[in-house]
Amino acid sequence: MNGNRFGRLFQVTTFGESHGEAMGCTISGCPAGLELSEEDIQADLDRRKPGQSMITTSRGEPDDVSIKSGIQDGYTTGTPIGLVIQNKDARSGKYEPFITAPRPSHGDFTYSAKFGTRNWGGGGRSSARETVNWVAAGAIAKKLLAREGIELKAHVNQIGDIEAPEVSFEEMLEHSEENDVRCAHPETAAEMQELIEEYQEEGDSIGGSIYFEAQGVPVGLGAPRFDSLSARLGQAMMAVPATTAFEFGLGTEAAEWTGKERNDDWEFDSDGDPTPVENDHGGIQGGISSGEPIYGEVTLHAPTSIPKSQQTADWETGELKEEKVIGRHDPVLPPRGVPVVEAMLALTLVDFMLLSGRLNPDRVDDQPGEYDTDYHPSNPQNE
Amino acid sequence: MNGNRFGRLFQVTTFGESHGEAMGCTISGCPAGLELSEEDIQADLDRRKPGQSMITTSRGEPDDVSIKSGIQDGYTTGTPIGLVIQNKDARSGKYEPFITAPRPSHGDFTYSAKFGTRNWGGGGRSSARETVNWVAAGAIAKKLLAREGIELKAHVNQIGDIEAPEVSFEEMLEHSEENDVRCAHPETAAEMQELIEEYQEEGDSIGGSIYFEAQGVPVGLGAPRFDSLSARLGQAMMAVPATTAFEFGLGTEAAEWTGKERNDDWEFDSDGDPTPVENDHGGIQGGISSGEPIYGEVTLHAPTSIPKSQQTADWETGELKEEKVIGRHDPVLPPRGVPVVEAMLALTLVDFMLLSGRLNPDRVDDQPGEYDTDYHPSNPQNE
Amino acid sequence: MNGNRFGRLFQVTTFGESHGEAMGCTISGCPAGLELSEEDIQADLDRRKPGQSMITTSRGEPDDVSIKSGIQDGYTTGTPIGLVIQNKDARSGKYEPFITAPRPSHGDFTYSAKFGTRNWGGGGRSSARETVNWVAAGAIAKKLLAREGIELKAHVNQIGDIEAPEVSFEEMLEHSEENDVRCAHPETAAEMQELIEEYQEEGDSIGGSIYFEAQGVPVGLGAPRFDSLSARLGQAMMAVPATTAFEFGLGTEAAEWTGKERNDDWEFDSDGDPTPVENDHGGIQGGISSGEPIYGEVTLHAPTSIPKSQQTADWETGELKEEKVIGRHDPVLPPRGVPVVEAMLALTLVDFMLLSGRLNPDRVDDQPGEYDTDYHPSNPQNE
Amino acid sequence: MNGNRFGRLFQVTTFGESHGEAMGCTISGCPAGLELSEEDIQADLDRRKPGQSMITTSRGEPDDVSIKSGIQDGYTTGTPIGLVIQNKDARSGKYEPFITAPRPSHGDFTYSAKFGTRNWGGGGRSSARETVNWVAAGAIAKKLLAREGIELKAHVNQIGDIEAPEVSFEEMLEHSEENDVRCAHPETAAEMQELIEEYQEEGDSIGGSIYFEAQGVPVGLGAPRFDSLSARLGQAMMAVPATTAFEFGLGTEAAEWTGKERNDDWEFDSDGDPTPVENDHGGIQGGISSGEPIYGEVTLHAPTSIPKSQQTADWETGELKEEKVIGRHDPVLPPRGVPVVEAMLALTLVDFMLLSGRLNPDRVDDQPGEYDTDYHPSNPQNE
Repeated sequence: MNGNRFGRLFQVTTFGESHGEAMGCTISGCPAGLELSEEDIQADLDRRKPGQSMITTSRGEPDDVSIKSGIQDGYTTGTPIGLVIQNKDARSGKYEPFITAPRPSHGDFTYSAKFGTRNWGGGGRSSARETVNWVAAGAIAKKLLAREGIELKAHVNQIGDIEAPEVSFEEMLEHSEENDVRCAHPETAAEMQELIEEYQEEGDSIGGSIYFEAQGVPVGLGAPRFDSLSARLGQAMMAVPATTAFEFGLGTEAAEWTGKERNDDWEFDSDGDPTPVENDHGGIQGGISSGEPIYGEVTLHAPTSIPKSQQTADWETGELKEEKVIGRHDPVLPPRGVPVVEAMLALTLVDFMLLSGRLNPDRVDDQPGEYDTDYHPSNPQNE
Repeated sequence: MNGNRFGRLFQVTTFGESHGEAMGCTISGCPAGLELSEEDIQADLDRRKPGQSMITTSRGEPDDVSIKSGIQDGYTTGTPIGLVIQNKDARSGKYEPFITAPRPSHGDFTYSAKFGTRNWGGGGRSSARETVNWVAAGAIAKKLLAREGIELKAHVNQIGDIEAPEVSFEEMLEHSEENDVRCAHPETAAEMQELIEEYQEEGDSIGGSIYFEAQGVPVGLGAPRFDSLSARLGQAMMAVPATTAFEFGLGTEAAEWTGKERNDDWEFDSDGDPTPVENDHGGIQGGISSGEPIYGEVTLHAPTSIPKSQQTADWETGELKEEKVIGRHDPVLPPRGVPVVEAMLALTLVDFMLLSGRLNPDRVDDQPGEYDTDYHPSNPQNE
Repeated sequence: MNGNRFGRLFQVTTFGESHGEAMGCTISGCPAGLELSEEDIQADLDRRKPGQSMITTSRGEPDDVSIKSGIQDGYTTGTPIGLVIQNKDARSGKYEPFITAPRPSHGDFTYSAKFGTRNWGGGGRSSARETVNWVAAGAIAKKLLAREGIELKAHVNQIGDIEAPEVSFEEMLEHSEENDVRCAHPETAAEMQELIEEYQEEGDSIGGSIYFEAQGVPVGLGAPRFDSLSARLGQAMMAVPATTAFEFGLGTEAAEWTGKERNDDWEFDSDGDPTPVENDHGGIQGGISSGEPIYGEVTLHAPTSIPKSQQTADWETGELKEEKVIGRHDPVLPPRGVPVVEAMLALTLVDFMLLSGRLNPDRVDDQPGEYDTDYHPSNPQNE
Repeated sequence: MNGNRFGRLFQVTTFGESHGEAMGCTISGCPAGLELSEEDIQADLDRRKPGQSMITTSRGEPDDVSIKSGIQDGYTTGTPIGLVIQNKDARSGKYEPFITAPRPSHGDFTYSAKFGTRNWGGGGRSSARETVNWVAAGAIAKKLLAREGIELKAHVNQIGDIEAPEVSFEEMLEHSEENDVRCAHPETAAEMQELIEEYQEEGDSIGGSIYFEAQGVPVGLGAPRFDSLSARLGQAMMAVPATTAFEFGLGTEAAEWTGKERNDDWEFDSDGDPTPVENDHGGIQGGISSGEPIYGEVTLHAPTSIPKSQQTADWETGELKEEKVIGRHDPVLPPRGVPVVEAMLALTLVDFMLLSGRLNPDRVDDQPGEYDTDYHPSNPQNE
C-alpha cells in the first residue's frame, strides 16, 4: 500500500535510507524450523555489496547483517525475523549542488514533489541501497525454496549492445559468479567488462539486462487473474530500481510468432502426466506455473548519476545550471542487480508456495534433530 | 490474494466463467457523487465485445451491463457498485476432444492441475471472457480520471512483424477506433488487417503489441519501493491474458542507451517549477510519476486456440492425439485488447489517485445540482 | 479497506442496498471440489429472512439466491462464486419525513456526512439487509468447516433483562430453532417472546445478546499478535449491525477473577497430549485456538427504527420536529441475528483454516466420484 | 495476515521476543513533515515500561528507543520509520520447569502446537513485551492526531470487583497518571492499589478493565460494513494481550435498554448542523463516527503467570506436576495496559483519518519553517 512491504503470506517490510543510520527489514511469515544463520544471508549480501570490484561504486559498506529476532538455537521460530544492517560509509557532502536542484532522471524531483521535502542524503529512500534489504530477505526465501527442490539463478545477458548467447542453467550456476560482470558466458563477460570500463572512463554509464530462471517449480502456482504468477513477477521485477521492461518466455519477441509456432505440443512424462514438448511458454500457462522452468528477462536503464555535465533547474535561485554528479556511483547496474533479481524471484515464488498450501505456513515439515525432544502437538498436515 | 480482486482503494472483484451463466464485478471504493449510467460503461464494453468485426471471434455476446447497486438518481452513492453481464452465447460442445486432453499452451492443463478438476466450458475462468469485467470497471475509473484532467488511450502498434510508426496522442484519439485493428496509423492498420486475414485463412494466429499513453497524470503518484507506479503497472498489465512483456519509457531499448543519452535535463515550466526537457523516462522517475505523459507497451502472444492440427496427450486414454481447436476464436488479440489495456491503466491510476489523497475517497468534490438541497455536513477537505 | 470485503484467503465481497435492485456477493478463495447447491445456501437464508414470524419485520422477501458462477456439475471449481439475491419488496415511501432529517441513532446522519448525499431508501447500504450476503457466504464456509469436523451454533441468550441459563452445545443444536426467539432454553424463550411482544405493542424495541460456540476447532488457528483469533473474531462480530460488545470466554466477568481461579490446569488427553482441565479461557490462549470449544457472546442494541415519536433536526427547514419511524422493522434483533453471528464465526474460522494450511486453498482433499475420470495432476499435498 | 502488521495506510510491522536481542517496529505510511524525536516516543514508553512501580514486574528495561530511519532534521520524511528497542534484562533461567510443560492458560501450549517448537524464553513472541512496539508506534499516531484536534486518553476503571465511578475526560487527563494504578479517580485508585497488593502478597493476580475515550474525532470515519470503525476498534482492542471483552457506548448494558431509551434525539449545533442530544451511541452510528466522543471499555483477565502452585503436564516425562511460575510478572495488567489501549486507539483512528482522505498520506499540510527554502512542487490538496 505504501510501498514498503512485499509479499502476501511471506511478508517483507523494509526501512532505511541511503545515508541514514541503518537499513533493516522484518520478515513475517517464515515458517518455524528452518535452519538459519547470519552467514546464510551474508553470502548474498556480499554479492550485492558496493566496492566489490572496479565496475561498482567505491562506497565501502561491509553490509554486515544482524538478526534481532525470530531465531532460536539456529532455527526459525515462526515469529518475525528482524534484520538490521548498519550504514557505515555515508558521506552526503558530495551532493551539495543538487540540494536545491534535481539530478536528471533521478528520483530527486518526484520524491521531493511527493513528500514536500528534500532528502538530499544520497537519494534518501529512493537509493538502490534499499535493495540490501531485499537481498537479505531473498536469501531466506531461497533457503526455503531449496528445501522444496526449487533452484533459481540470474546472470547478466546484455550490456549496451553486447548480448550474451543463450546459456544453460548449469552454465549460469557455474560461470556467472566467476567474473565481475556476472555474465555466465566468459568471453562475452570480458567484452562487457571492457565496454563498461570505456563508459566509466568517459564519465558516462550504460544500460543492460538480466536473465533469470527458476527450476523445479511445481505445477499450480499463481492465482489468476490479477494475482497470476506472471502478474506478481511483473510487480516484483518492475520494482527493481531502474527497470524499464519485464519479459517472460518469448517476451517482446512473441509479437512476431504465430500460434502454431509458439504453441507447445503435449506429450507424456515418465509419470504418465501430460508435459509440454518445449517451453516457449516460459513456464507459465494461463497465469499458473506449468512445471517447466520459469525464465525471463529484466532490462535496467543506465545509472542516472554520472560525472558528466548535465543541465538542471535550481528552484531556489530560479536559474538553470550545468552540474556533474560527483560521488560514488555504479557505471552499470546489472552486475549488482543479479542478486536483487534473484531475491525478487525467490520472494515471489515462496509467497506462492505458501499461498498454494504447498509450504506449511506454520512450520517446515521435518523438524531439526535437536527439537525432537520438544513437544510437537499433532498437526494434521504434518502426519 | 486469490486473484479475483484488483486495486487497493479502488477495488474491483470479479466473477464468471466463459460458459457460465453470467459475468460480474463489484467496484468498491468509487467515491459518491459521480454521474454514472449503464451507457457510460456500455461504450467501452462494445469496443471489447466479440463479433465486432471479421478479425474477432464470431461468438455473439451483446455484453449488456446491468447496474445492480451503488447508484441513486444517476449518481454514485459511495457504496459498492454491483455489475452483472449475462452470458448469452455459450456453446461448449465444440471443445469435446479437449475435455480429457489439454489444448497446447492454453491454461487448460494448469487450471486442471491446480484445482483438480476440469472446467471444460470454453476454458472456464481462464478465458479472456473475464476481461469484460475489467473493461466495465475501467470505464468507471476513466470517468473519475477525466474529472481530474487525466486522459488515456491505447492502440495496436505491432502485429507480427509489422510495426506502426510513432504516433501522437492526438492521432491515437483520432484514428485508433477507425479501423478493426485499432491501429492509429491508418496505412499500417490496413497492412496489419491483411496479415491477420492471411493467418486466419491458414488456420493460424499471430501475436502483436499495444502501446498505451496517459496524459495529465499529476506529479507524485506511486509508492516506492514495492508499490511504485511502474511495479503496479507491471502487475496490472502482466495480468492481461496472453501478455509476455511489459515495457515503459524506452523499455527493452534502454539496455543500449548510455546515461548521458537517456537522462532528461531539467528546465523550468511556465509556473517556475522544474520540468524535464524530454521524456525518455516515460513519465516515471524513481517509481513516482513525474508529470510527463506515461507511456509504454504490452506484448501479447498469438492466441493459442487455433484450428490447426496439434499434438496433445489424452490422460484418460493415455494416448497422444492430433487435434484441432474448433470453436470461435480470435486470430489475434491486440485489437480487442486495446480497451482491456486502457482499463488496467485506468484502474491503476485511479487507485494511486485515491492512495495519494488526490481524490477524495468518500465523494467527488463538486456534488451534482440535484443534491444541493440535501444535507452536506462539513467535510474539512471539501471546503 | 473500503469495508465491503471480509476475509484474507476466503474473501467475501458484497454489494447491495436495502431498496436497490439486488443484493450480491462474490466468494473468492473457496477450494474446488466442494459439493454445493443453491439449497445449501437457501437453508440459512431462510433462517435470516424477514417476515418469518410475528416478531420480525413484515417485509416480504423470499431471498432466493442464484449462483452465477464457480460451480460445475454441482461442485465448486475453485474460481469465484458469484451470488445474486433480488430485492422484491422494497418500498421507500414510508421514510419520507426522514429524507431531510436523520433518524435518531441510525446510520442516516453519518452516511450522509461521509458520502455527501442521502440514500434515503430504507437506509441504503447501512441497512441490516446487507447481512443476507454474509449469511449466504457463511453457509458455504459452514460446509467447508463441517468436512473438517468443525461445527458451530449460536442462540439468543438474553433479551432485555431476561437471561437464559447456560445450555449445552447439544441443547443449542436441538432447541434454538424450535422457537421464534431462537433461544435454546424453551421456557426462557417463551418469556422472551412475551417481553418482545410487549415492547412491540407499545411501539418500542429492545436489545439482547447472542451466545455462540464452535466445536472441533483444531489447535493452532490464529496469527498473533494483530491477527490473533480473538482479534479477528472481534472485527467480525463488531461488524454485525447494532453490536456494542464482543466477549469470549469469561468476557467482562474476567475482570473479577483472580489468576488462580481463571487459569486452567493441564492434564493429558487420551493421545497423551496436554489438554486443559477446564475451559475458562474460551478456547483461545495467547490468541491461538487451544483445541477446546470457542465460545463467546455478542450484544446487540435495540433497533433504532421505532414507531414512537422522537425529535429530529430537519436540515432543509432548519427546524426541529417530532417524528415516528413508520415502516417495517424488527422489534428486536437477536432472533434474526443468530444466523448472522454464525456466518461471521464460520467465515473467520474458515479463513484461519486456509491461512494455517489446514485447508488446501486450491481444492478439498477428496474429490467427488464423478470427477474421478478427470485428470488430477499430482499435488504433493494431496498424496 | 501473519499477525505482525497493523493498519492499512498507517502500517505498523513489529518484531521481537521477550528474551530476544531487541524489539523493533517499522512505521510505514506516516506523512512527511511531522516534527518527531525519540523523546516524543519515549514519554509513552516510560508509561508502559516494567519496573515503574511496586505493582508491576521488576524486570529492569530502560526501553530506550532508537530511530533508525525516516527522520531528517527532526521531521519525518514520508519514508518508513524504523525503530529499535534493545532488550537489556532478559533472564530465561527461571522458566525451566516449564520448558517441557505449558504454563496454565498461557500461550505456551498453543504457540508450541502451532510452530512445532518451544520458545521458552519468557514466552517468546507471545509475551506482552511485544506491546512496547505498539506504544512506540502509537506515540507517533497520537502526534498526528493532535495536529488534527483529536485527543484521546484511557484510565483503569475496574480492578477485581472495585469499579471507579464515571469520570470526565478532563479528570482522566488530570488524574490518571498521578497514581500507580492509572485510575483517574484518586480514592478508587487507592482502594485498587490495596487490593492488588493483597493478591500480590498471596501469590495470585487479578483482572480489571480500562476505559478509553477519544475527543475531536470528525464525522465520517469508518468504512462499513466489515471495516466499520467499531469493527476495526474491535480487532485493535481484542489484540491487546489478555483482553476478553471489547465494548463501546453502552456495551453489554445495551441488551437491557429499549430503543426509545437508547436512541439519541437530534438538535442543531451552533453551525446549524444536526447533532445528537446525548451520546448513548458511543460516538459511532452505523459503523461511522458521529462527531461525538468515542468511548468504550476493554476487559483484561488476570495475568496467568503466578507464583502459586498449579498443575501442568510434562510432555517429555509424560507426568503431571505441580509448579509455580517463578519470574518477574505483573500482578495485574490494566495499569501498564493504559498506554497500550491508547496506542491501539490512536493507530486505529489515524488509519481511518488517512483512509478517509482527511489526512494527506504524503505529507502533513503545513511544512515546518526550515523546509521553506526547499522545493515544494504543487500538490492540489495542499493549496
